[in-house]
Amino acid sequence: MNSHPTLSNDQVTLPIGFHAFVTNLGIRDNSDDCVVIAADRPVPTAGMFTQSRFAGPSVTISRSHLADGYAQAMVVISKNANVATGEIGTRDATELADLVAERLVADPDDIVVASTGVIGRTYPMDRIRRGLATMPAVLTGRHAIPAARAMMTTDTVPKVAESSIEGTDARVVGIAKGVGMIEPDMATMIAVVLTDAEVEPDDLAHAWHDAVETTFNSVSIDTDTSTSDTAVVMASGAAGPVPLDALTMALTAVSQELAIMIARDGEGAETLIEVHVDGARDDAQAKLVAKSIVNSPLVKTAVHGADPNWGRVAMAIGKCSDQTDIDPDRVIIRFGTTEVYPQLLDDTELAQLSDYMATDTVVIHVSLEIGDGEARVWGCDLTDGYVRINADYTT
Amino acid sequence: MNSHPTLSNDQVTLPIGFHAFVTNLGIRDNSDDCVVIAADRPVPTAGMFTQSRFAGPSVTISRSHLADGYAQAMVVISKNANVATGEIGTRDATELADLVAERLVADPDDIVVASTGVIGRTYPMDRIRRGLATMPAVLTGRHAIPAARAMMTTDTVPKVAESSIEGTDARVVGIAKGVGMIEPDMATMIAVVLTDAEVEPDDLAHAWHDAVETTFNSVSIDTDTSTSDTAVVMASGAAGPVPLDALTMALTAVSQELAIMIARDGEGAETLIEVHVDGARDDAQAKLVAKSIVNSPLVKTAVHGADPNWGRVAMAIGKCSDQTDIDPDRVIIRFGTTEVYPQLLDDTELAQLSDYMATDTVVIHVSLEIGDGEARVWGCDLTDGYVRINADYTT
Repeated sequence: MNSHPTLSNDQVTLPIGFHAFVTNLGIRDNSDDCVVIAADRPVPTAGMFTQSRFAGPSVTISRSHLADGYAQAMVVISKNANVATGEIGTRDATELADLVAERLVADPDDIVVASTGVIGRTYPMDRIRRGLATMPAVLTGRHAIPAARAMMTTDTVPKVAESSIEGTDARVVGIAKGVGMIEPDMATMIAVVLTDAEVEPDDLAHAWHDAVETTFNSVSIDTDTSTSDTAVVMASGAAGPVPLDALTMALTAVSQELAIMIARDGEGAETLIEVHVDGARDDAQAKLVAKSIVNSPLVKTAVHGADPNWGRVAMAIGKCSDQTDIDPDRVIIRFGTTEVYPQLLDDTELAQLSDYMATDTVVIHVSLEIGDGEARVWGCDLTDGYVRINADYTT
Repeated sequence: MNSHPTLSNDQVTLPIGFHAFVTNLGIRDNSDDCVVIAADRPVPTAGMFTQSRFAGPSVTISRSHLADGYAQAMVVISKNANVATGEIGTRDATELADLVAERLVADPDDIVVASTGVIGRTYPMDRIRRGLATMPAVLTGRHAIPAARAMMTTDTVPKVAESSIEGTDARVVGIAKGVGMIEPDMATMIAVVLTDAEVEPDDLAHAWHDAVETTFNSVSIDTDTSTSDTAVVMASGAAGPVPLDALTMALTAVSQELAIMIARDGEGAETLIEVHVDGARDDAQAKLVAKSIVNSPLVKTAVHGADPNWGRVAMAIGKCSDQTDIDPDRVIIRFGTTEVYPQLLDDTELAQLSDYMATDTVVIHVSLEIGDGEARVWGCDLTDGYVRINADYTT
């Protein structure tokens, strides 16, 4: 569907203090469907999870295991979400954490579990037991790409991003998956971000919350919120202490890069849409309006048709009907840097703008002229491909 | 796209006291694009309009003209929404009302204006002036279908419904248009409902509000709220007084039939989806959950693929994350009358259910088992056709 060979960096290794194990359990086919990422002891770890009322047992168990701010390893199963599977699902997720803990000689309470894929199917536990029995006690995998690949479902590319932490030797490396059922209420899909920085659990949790809000929480592919959304950060401490601001910046940089990769790899997507709203009453209003635009099926299909149809952007702003301080007579709409409302283009200028709309990244810039609030969100166009993928996928 | 020959009733005449004039002004092509429906004097009239912050001047002017509860005529222009057209748009809409009033020898304040079509283009006023100059002072059109046809944009069929008012000789006849940009916050698209019942303006407004809430306000094709939504009811009084309950029932019956026609004729739609939620805390919660389901792109594509993918229904329920009294362990999900959760079907039973999913109407029935709240909403599947129509339409 997409061809973005530069999306992922082939050479990225995990930060010092982390190793990975990747395998095929045979959940659905013969592609890798299980990854375990482990530190050599419990390390500061923070997680943000789906707000869904139908959250799966992976989410419930991980929330509880992260209550103390520490974890030693994370296991991710793909191709089966283990959601809406009742008591069996809870028992299976618990056993999964136990199996990983047993192999690593760790405390089950220090294992984070995440799962993504089909809803409503129980795990094939015999295959999971057999597959994890081959995992060594001491992991040796150092590369991020195979780990990212093992988390994929309908993703077309593995998603890896890295950043140094300014003024230090520490690094941040993130891997993520997610292409559909994505309008994160908090985090999104599954993202694991690792750093060798040394940081207290509370500080890590705070930095993570800040990073997630403007990145993963600002992506929307199809307004559907997954039952499995999980975003976890682990800090091994191997590179020593770092300034908290620099850590937050690096976490945000990595998360933003992953978030944009997710939007660009949206199911069936051909165009990345960035919506930038400024001049809002506050950041929250800016995000609300930006989400309304990026989620509008009519805006998304217009971008797909390379049509600079600003009327649909106006419509999407207008949908925020409880924002009574938005005055249509003050709103400015731009595609890229070209103003299209209220300064109307003539038909020739609109035709020129169609060339811009046909590029692989379209920026929709809206100024509300109320205050200083600002937000950026990312999404993608709505294509025949999205419909085909989701009309044909499962059960 | 659709073929529902029985959608409209060829023989429906307007209720006593109303006449219509239909013409082609040449707004876009040579199909009829203007209809005027008039009583012979100001009659009780109620309207509900879009909540959009980008509401067009037609909406603003009509709201003001209906403030006294009376109108004599309604003019509907199709193929041009006259929205986001600034001061020119307001001046043009005012002139449109004036032109109609002048021809009918009526008060401009008694003219309701509605407009639907492309956003951001000003009216071709010379053509509108020329076209309306051919309108006679006394209208003679008696048929509903041509009037409904003149309001169409991407509609594939004219939408007409009628009902008698129980225990009386009075009738209710409604015409409507609307296929995309439809998630009415109050009413939807353009609907004109006429009755020859005799009723006070306040009673009519009250009955209309009740009818709209459970019908037009319960349709969602694509979550996009139009800037032009207008639903108007006019009562000529020619058939004498009627019980208010019977009037409300007939208004609701006609509006529901039109609402379902709109959902079935949704852009690119091949399947009508009815979502029925019961056992909710209250009707509002039921409607919130039902809307979340009917609006989910993943549910809509699953229906398109004839896939009984109840996991996506569970996901859409779970999205209502602020409804903390929803307990996944108590929820029951059915397709038609077949329970699919928590009582799981085996693969053979699921395959049988696919036959039901392939019919032209799919009912998704969710019981929350909390209280007595209930709601029904209507939408349609998401198809390649929707994408194509909206990627190619305008500007």
